[in-house]
Amino acid sequence: MGRIFNFSAGPAALPLEVLEQAQAEMLDWNGRGASVMEISHRSKAFIKVAEQAEADVRELLGVPQDYAVLFLQGGATQQFALLPMNLAGADQAVDYVVTGQWSKKAASEAKILRRTNVVADGAAGNYTAVPERAGWKLTPGAAYVHYCPNETIGGLEFHTVPDVGDVPLVADMSSTIMSRPVDVKRFGVIYAGAQKNIGPAGLVLMIIRRDLLERVADTVPNILRYAAQAKEGSMLNTPATYSWYVAGLVFAWLKRRGGLAAMAEINSRKAGKLYRAIDESGYYSNPVERASRSWMNVPFTLPRPELDAAFLAEAEKAGLAELKGHRSVGGMRASIYNAMPEAGVDALIQFMADFARRNG
Amino acid sequence: MGRIFNFSAGPAALPLEVLEQAQAEMLDWNGRGASVMEISHRSKAFIKVAEQAEADVRELLGVPQDYAVLFLQGGATQQFALLPMNLAGADQAVDYVVTGQWSKKAASEAKILRRTNVVADGAAGNYTAVPERAGWKLTPGAAYVHYCPNETIGGLEFHTVPDVGDVPLVADMSSTIMSRPVDVKRFGVIYAGAQKNIGPAGLVLMIIRRDLLERVADTVPNILRYAAQAKEGSMLNTPATYSWYVAGLVFAWLKRRGGLAAMAEINSRKAGKLYRAIDESGYYSNPVERASRSWMNVPFTLPRPELDAAFLAEAEKAGLAELKGHRSVGGMRASIYNAMPEAGVDALIQFMADFARRNG
Repeated sequence: MGRIFNFSAGPAALPLEVLEQAQAEMLDWNGRGASVMEISHRSKAFIKVAEQAEADVRELLGVPQDYAVLFLQGGATQQFALLPMNLAGADQAVDYVVTGQWSKKAASEAKILRRTNVVADGAAGNYTAVPERAGWKLTPGAAYVHYCPNETIGGLEFHTVPDVGDVPLVADMSSTIMSRPVDVKRFGVIYAGAQKNIGPAGLVLMIIRRDLLERVADTVPNILRYAAQAKEGSMLNTPATYSWYVAGLVFAWLKRRGGLAAMAEINSRKAGKLYRAIDESGYYSNPVERASRSWMNVPFTLPRPELDAAFLAEAEKAGLAELKGHRSVGGMRASIYNAMPEAGVDALIQFMADFARRNG
Repeated sequence: MGRIFNFSAGPAALPLEVLEQAQAEMLDWNGRGASVMEISHRSKAFIKVAEQAEADVRELLGVPQDYAVLFLQGGATQQFALLPMNLAGADQAVDYVVTGQWSKKAASEAKILRRTNVVADGAAGNYTAVPERAGWKLTPGAAYVHYCPNETIGGLEFHTVPDVGDVPLVADMSSTIMSRPVDVKRFGVIYAGAQKNIGPAGLVLMIIRRDLLERVADTVPNILRYAAQAKEGSMLNTPATYSWYVAGLVFAWLKRRGGLAAMAEINSRKAGKLYRAIDESGYYSNPVERASRSWMNVPFTLPRPELDAAFLAEAEKAGLAELKGHRSVGGMRASIYNAMPEAGVDALIQFMADFARRNG
């Protein structure tokens, strides 16, 4: 069949141009008579790929020189454990803002390792609003404040960066990275699993202020130390080379599209029209307060859950796939990351209107 | 250019048929109108991929039911830290056999976490022979004995499994897994980074006896616990889905080739003829004692290091790539994993003979 519009929350759609290039180069990359997947990470050819990807991240996000850019293996969830191990002393407190399932998981992993304080929790409002900064009870002397700028499941997004003073702010940007410009120097650490806006699953992009690298204790295994990875250019051991290469293709695609300012304009427009269609339908609904709605993940429900199966089946037939909401929430969710063309959002909106008319 | 014979030690060559299938399916996998890279790991379609890969591992290696098969993220080096965290109590000793650079690294990571005893060390002989089992000084009450059945850098291989009694034997099989049949029940844990004989870098295959899963302390973060991964089918978080898929293609290819008994026959023949060519040349040499020579990684030197550059350049021109030895050793190394066709070994042998004649 032809390509679908893929609304998967992650692993998510990649730009068609990126997949086409990966396909063309699969048997013979760069005139080498081998795939990039088959090449040593220490070869000059691969190091060029790695360095270009880092340079593009620095350019796209405006990363200052006093930050290291790491390409780590695994997923963001593993960082839930590695962050406290690397950034906090054994007796130091760490602060977590809980706004949904991902930030909650991050806090629960930290609790195993360090004295963890939840300094704000949106549970009372069922995570439908970003908690006011004024109400956060930061712990004096905490090693850092962790939050999740975009909750993939709840569809809740911080549209401004909270001010936490001199305490390093640590952000799990898995589902919002590269969707808009970010003022990196407001953060101590930015990290993101690749499988939403960057590339294949199994890779984590981390941007970390270099002074924070020095915090790690010598009781932490070498392979789990950010400092050791930074020193070796993320090649302390064999990195996820193919994922790194695909990420590089995505960064090059983002630059061709005009960078993150251009993406922000497109993403804001895509999200805006989808929320408008939901709100004005009198049929679909989204529970998140308007100022906290995510540009990337748009959950919505139908008037009756009995309609869900028909909605999903008909959408699939119309080439609109992976719209089922997270198993913990139900309903629908349209993830509209960078790779989702505006035409996909338009097609979804039209389908939703048709479906509502036929099932009103 | 056409496909080369790629002797890279890892990331290493993949079977051409596997790459061709991955290429054909890049834009539209399984009639879904999307790449497998873009599909949720929790979708029925991906779970089928995951389950088939596990079933094929069980079939190929004859894995008994009381062992779990895990597809973990990252590389084998990360397991150097996670093994002691998962398998040994805080005060328990762990035993390591050191036969080269990889087993040495494994021991040095364990030392950070647990009381680590090196029970045999081949350093005195410059790691050119497997240390006799009779000389190993096992620690009473040790949590496990760790060894590396094939040292990728030194080209040293255990051709029999050492008997360590009831203590669980833990083996880093990164560069020998799937090269021949293995009696899994002799082991407590078998683990292997994917990028040599399995698939793309960023994935670890682990086969672990289920009773060992229960050893982990509750002070270990959940995401780093083998027990938690086993419980969730290696989907505690988003796994490296694309690498898992490619690994599955490799396992299917191995089955079509006749399984591991057939591979062992081919691999033994490939290695045998290459070592014979080296030994009989009076020109090239390999330092490893015959009984300990690796089937997978064949290091060799030329009579004078000044010849290395010409050898590498001419080999490259003849379509024989990635023959440079590891930076820590120098000389040459031909890695001849499953995906290296016998014709590649034949071409190398012929080139070596020609080169020796011209530069005698």
